[in-house]
Amino acid sequence: MIEANDPNLKTWVEVLDDSDFPIQNLPFGIFTSGDNGSRIGVAIGENVLDLATLNKLGYLSKLDISQSIFESKYLNDLIALGQPVWRALRQRISELLRDSNPELRDNMEDRRLVLLGQSAVQMHMPVKVNDYTDFYSSKEHATNVGTMFRDPDNALLPNWLHIPVGYHGRASSIVISGTDIRRPKGQTIAPDADKPNFGPSRLLDFELEMAFVVGKGNVLGNSVSTKDAEDHIFGMVLFNDWSARDIQKWEYVPLGPFLAKNFASSVSPWIVTLDALQPFKTAGPIQDPEPLPYLKFEGEKNYDINLEVAIKPENGEEKAVCNSNFKYMYWNMAQQLAHHTVNGCNMQIGDMCASGTISGPTPESYGSMLELTWRGSKPIAMPDGSERKFINDGDTVIMRGYAEKNGVRIGFGEVTGKVLPAT
Amino acid sequence: MIEANDPNLKTWVEVLDDSDFPIQNLPFGIFTSGDNGSRIGVAIGENVLDLATLNKLGYLSKLDISQSIFESKYLNDLIALGQPVWRALRQRISELLRDSNPELRDNMEDRRLVLLGQSAVQMHMPVKVNDYTDFYSSKEHATNVGTMFRDPDNALLPNWLHIPVGYHGRASSIVISGTDIRRPKGQTIAPDADKPNFGPSRLLDFELEMAFVVGKGNVLGNSVSTKDAEDHIFGMVLFNDWSARDIQKWEYVPLGPFLAKNFASSVSPWIVTLDALQPFKTAGPIQDPEPLPYLKFEGEKNYDINLEVAIKPENGEEKAVCNSNFKYMYWNMAQQLAHHTVNGCNMQIGDMCASGTISGPTPESYGSMLELTWRGSKPIAMPDGSERKFINDGDTVIMRGYAEKNGVRIGFGEVTGKVLPAT
Repeated sequence: MIEANDPNLKTWVEVLDDSDFPIQNLPFGIFTSGDNGSRIGVAIGENVLDLATLNKLGYLSKLDISQSIFESKYLNDLIALGQPVWRALRQRISELLRDSNPELRDNMEDRRLVLLGQSAVQMHMPVKVNDYTDFYSSKEHATNVGTMFRDPDNALLPNWLHIPVGYHGRASSIVISGTDIRRPKGQTIAPDADKPNFGPSRLLDFELEMAFVVGKGNVLGNSVSTKDAEDHIFGMVLFNDWSARDIQKWEYVPLGPFLAKNFASSVSPWIVTLDALQPFKTAGPIQDPEPLPYLKFEGEKNYDINLEVAIKPENGEEKAVCNSNFKYMYWNMAQQLAHHTVNGCNMQIGDMCASGTISGPTPESYGSMLELTWRGSKPIAMPDGSERKFINDGDTVIMRGYAEKNGVRIGFGEVTGKVLPAT
Repeated sequence: MIEANDPNLKTWVEVLDDSDFPIQNLPFGIFTSGDNGSRIGVAIGENVLDLATLNKLGYLSKLDISQSIFESKYLNDLIALGQPVWRALRQRISELLRDSNPELRDNMEDRRLVLLGQSAVQMHMPVKVNDYTDFYSSKEHATNVGTMFRDPDNALLPNWLHIPVGYHGRASSIVISGTDIRRPKGQTIAPDADKPNFGPSRLLDFELEMAFVVGKGNVLGNSVSTKDAEDHIFGMVLFNDWSARDIQKWEYVPLGPFLAKNFASSVSPWIVTLDALQPFKTAGPIQDPEPLPYLKFEGEKNYDINLEVAIKPENGEEKAVCNSNFKYMYWNMAQQLAHHTVNGCNMQIGDMCASGTISGPTPESYGSMLELTWRGSKPIAMPDGSERKFINDGDTVIMRGYAEKNGVRIGFGEVTGKVLPAT
């Protein structure tokens, strides 16, 4: 076991029982406060631990990480120092925050300097994403979509059970949680019409996803095996793959989704390390037919992470519309990474690979409005008496996720985005 | 007319008659020589003009561009200074190279310092590509592919005449001309088989494309009109979108090409500015049905650029297999950029948008082996007596392009790549 994951550890920082950020988590993010520049922070309870100040005060000096790394705009340079360095850093932070360690605990002035309230800081994109790939790895989601749009008797396409299907998405429009989402305009076509129309999307949807952040690249021409794959992953975030269903339907054959997706994707600000998630490993669905040798793997490679999506109308009460779990994924992250690189494609630090919509086996676990309302045929009743088939202007979509075991809750916080009317 | 484009200009630098790089061109690239770091260069005849040294010697001082910009790894920071600055820089370089201007002409020592032989330098990726999009804008290509793989009577999909269809590609695996290309491995399926196999692609192909480099970004949520689009383009390169047809066929439904393309794309090293290409504007094909208002445009937006593809076997003689022209494109670059941003998608400086395979109306103008050999049914005879249906190990694929008018030839040089056997 990684020592920093020990469920018996306690911290001198106040951490509420249902906090996503106990001492066993220690996720990394990028924040600013006041007029200060960007810094790396670690979430602990309701606080952000300011690593730039912590290093300046000498608490991290043994790690010999340059101060400029802690004052970066993104985590990429820290991640590039390598897994032994991130691990040592997380371990050192864990030590500093333990209730048994007086170093920082008893220095009230330093505590005041390095611990800031999360509500008092501004979070930013944690990594510079060079390339972003979206997979399509939930069998339930692929089956639901195939049933609705193609053939219920042959819902899964022939390649789906052999390939962790994925496609390239737009990196530039990945935004940090809290960024407003402008309803996109585009071409759509009415049923039986012979010409498209142009206007605001009327079928704006979320997709409940998680994404992993690449922590170690591979050279063009080389591949990453399923065995090595997890050493190439730094951590994970919640990911809302906003989708305009009417634009998607008209544009996506034959080259895949484009404008239906690339207007925005939202991510949660804290990257929960794969190290912190180790206690939550679990077996995935049985894969039948057996995958090709390069996709085989040993051990448990899925993760038991509870996921929730809620919709909050403007000035209204939020309503949970989906409860799912990351463990439902048919293809796991190791397989995704092995597949992505099997042709020699080079991954770079900071790249994001999203899971695809995470739908479970029951209707309330479907990870998109498309599936939850079954193309709008089963609207969701909201607390204010209104209905939702898709997402309205003014609605905020909130995704949350956490893993829990032995009394320890490792959470992701939230990814939120409010939909603004089209211009 | 842009003064630097004047066909009457002559330079004191030796430029052969059939050179791609007369004084009217002045394309930008990134090079290294010996142990020196990266610098910005401009091609003139068989030479590279070293802008870093030129600026150090004071010849560019009036432009007030910082020396570090000329010593960058990429052109992005220069481009970010804005169109007025690149234009002034090209104009100043044009002045310095004119035969009537003694400033540099008569300073033999400085000439020796700033003019290097192209054969003596190493060219590098000219821009850091953040996001890469591949369009599918040749009607002939889309029709050929639709005829072969779908229905000859309905070769074009219903959306094709309404949408400049495009999809996201992989930015990290775009490589500079001359980089060897490793034959990719992947999943393919034999006809009538019920399970895929894994192994080296047997149907490796090129796609003759050109790409434009974004020269001005737009903020997320904003759009670029067809009217403004050309001011958002810095210049163009030749682009080989290497494609593994057998991998593509098995993987691409429903989310588009992925591993069939993302193992490598090759680009030519010199970015020819859109300014230098202005004399070669021409009308494009008539668009019927009329496009939606956001895709309408005024004036001529196509460019008359002759394109050639040759295959050179290992230690063999090269053979031209395709002669096409960029003017055949149905959807022009202004329409591509307007479409890409109409939903608010944000473009960034250095982004590349490739045209899609540029096929013309005649069989010898088809821009891929897939079309030239009609899925392998019409092999191409090579000078050494061998045949090609697709690209063999050891083959080098060479693409060239130039525009010519009033005795002035504005060329792109070459993009080459040699195929190495799968590992």
